[in-house]
Amino acid sequence: MSTIAFIGLGNMGGPMAANLVKAGHRVVGVDVTQAAIDRHVAAGGVKGASIAEAVAEADVVVTMLPSGREVNALYLAESGIVPKVKPGALLIDSSTIDVDTARAVAKAAAAKGLAMLDAPVSGGTGGATAGTLTFMCGGEDATFARAKPYLDAMGKTIVHAGGPGNGQAAKICNNMILGITMIATSEAFVLAEKLGLDAQKLFDIASKSSGQSWSLTTYCPVPGPVPTSPANRDYQPGFTAAMMLKDLKLAQDAARSAGAVTPMGAEAASLYGLYAAQGEAGTDFSGIVNFLRGR
Amino acid sequence: MSTIAFIGLGNMGGPMAANLVKAGHRVVGVDVTQAAIDRHVAAGGVKGASIAEAVAEADVVVTMLPSGREVNALYLAESGIVPKVKPGALLIDSSTIDVDTARAVAKAAAAKGLAMLDAPVSGGTGGATAGTLTFMCGGEDATFARAKPYLDAMGKTIVHAGGPGNGQAAKICNNMILGITMIATSEAFVLAEKLGLDAQKLFDIASKSSGQSWSLTTYCPVPGPVPTSPANRDYQPGFTAAMMLKDLKLAQDAARSAGAVTPMGAEAASLYGLYAAQGEAGTDFSGIVNFLRGR
Repeated sequence: MSTIAFIGLGNMGGPMAANLVKAGHRVVGVDVTQAAIDRHVAAGGVKGASIAEAVAEADVVVTMLPSGREVNALYLAESGIVPKVKPGALLIDSSTIDVDTARAVAKAAAAKGLAMLDAPVSGGTGGATAGTLTFMCGGEDATFARAKPYLDAMGKTIVHAGGPGNGQAAKICNNMILGITMIATSEAFVLAEKLGLDAQKLFDIASKSSGQSWSLTTYCPVPGPVPTSPANRDYQPGFTAAMMLKDLKLAQDAARSAGAVTPMGAEAASLYGLYAAQGEAGTDFSGIVNFLRGR
Repeated sequence: MSTIAFIGLGNMGGPMAANLVKAGHRVVGVDVTQAAIDRHVAAGGVKGASIAEAVAEADVVVTMLPSGREVNALYLAESGIVPKVKPGALLIDSSTIDVDTARAVAKAAAAKGLAMLDAPVSGGTGGATAGTLTFMCGGEDATFARAKPYLDAMGKTIVHAGGPGNGQAAKICNNMILGITMIATSEAFVLAEKLGLDAQKLFDIASKSSGQSWSLTTYCPVPGPVPTSPANRDYQPGFTAAMMLKDLKLAQDAARSAGAVTPMGAEAASLYGLYAAQGEAGTDFSGIVNFLRGR
């Protein structure tokens, strides 16, 4: 069993750290919020005095942070993870951040002889608690192999997408498809409604035809056809519009940086921005169907 | 067995009429092109002298025409189908046209006591020849029941989507989802490529995740992951960009007419318009990935 420093014990990081505790590891947690620390200790974790002290004694460091800015700061600051971590420790960043920062931090870690994996997740707080997350990983083969037993303790599907940054790339590419396809599906339901075509009829036809998608058949944005979808519980998340907007912005950052043209991705980012701005940032992202329908 | 007047013996109508001949019907064909007539006669059909004469002796009239303009003209002209057809005959329009025209023509037919079904298809020329088309039908229950045996001779999946015009509504809603989702999927593959994420890796991840769709897993726009998709035969159609553009324009017509807001549908119509304008109208619609990638 290992000593793991876990930085960022929020809605996702908290239950992920708890699953590492359950797997028998000594998990030294750090967070800016006292309540998060208290929950971590109650779950059997240890309170870290600081990032520098927590990582100095850790075999593995796992981070779950809000954005690339925090990842960059906490890894590269003078008393941050890369300067202070024990030689030979394994670094796993499960934050969802921009590809460029993920690659820059991995490069800085490699320059100090440290193996680092970017391993953003999907599956939400439910998956974090149940230990059924999907991890999309970027890093060297040997790094992935070292990290896998720890990821197995927190997730169900662990995928290696290639070298450093490719975990982030895989996540934003997938979620860009998702964001666009959810709007496409929602537009079709609104159009059908205004044309007098029953939602269940459209579902029955499109779900067995070329309009089929995960957005339609697993996460249907109108109530009825898929009883488990958030549409049936007044669009309680699930996956919020704010989270989708974040991922779509990351996809646009990546597209600009890499020189890719993604007009639909840009339009989806605009539409989720408008939807979130109506006070709906905390609503499930499939609620955009109500925004498209209007009042 | 019935006498069927079949108007429009083109790439789709020709093989559809041939399947009605095979089912044992007397099929009186009309087309503006002599070659189409010759093929119809070679397949065992009968040449009609004119629309008026063909429909005057028919129990059933099937039309397969390029657009709402032709449907409106041929059904409602003085010597057209509605004025000249035998009383009690069944009218089936398999053209893909705008919802408003479909409803207006059905209403004019009903005013003369004629039962009419709009029954646009999907499945392309391959499905038309093999008799495996999908028919999306709009009309009264009794009309659908009367038409079904004839549609069964030409297709495999026959769906009743509701009252007059709803066959057209179902088709354009489905194909609007398809057009948008194909672009979404293509943008993700281009972005992945520019980020150094292998296409097969993205496929493996997204196809088992929330990015899954028919566009990805059945009709993948890049060569490799789905061997049967047009990407593996240099984007030979399949379903051309011109056909997709036509359906997206019909969806926009319907949205404007019904007061629905479909920003992604509008963007997809623009992008397919631009793609077709590059000389790619006859290329499979999944070839838009090459347009997005650039040279």
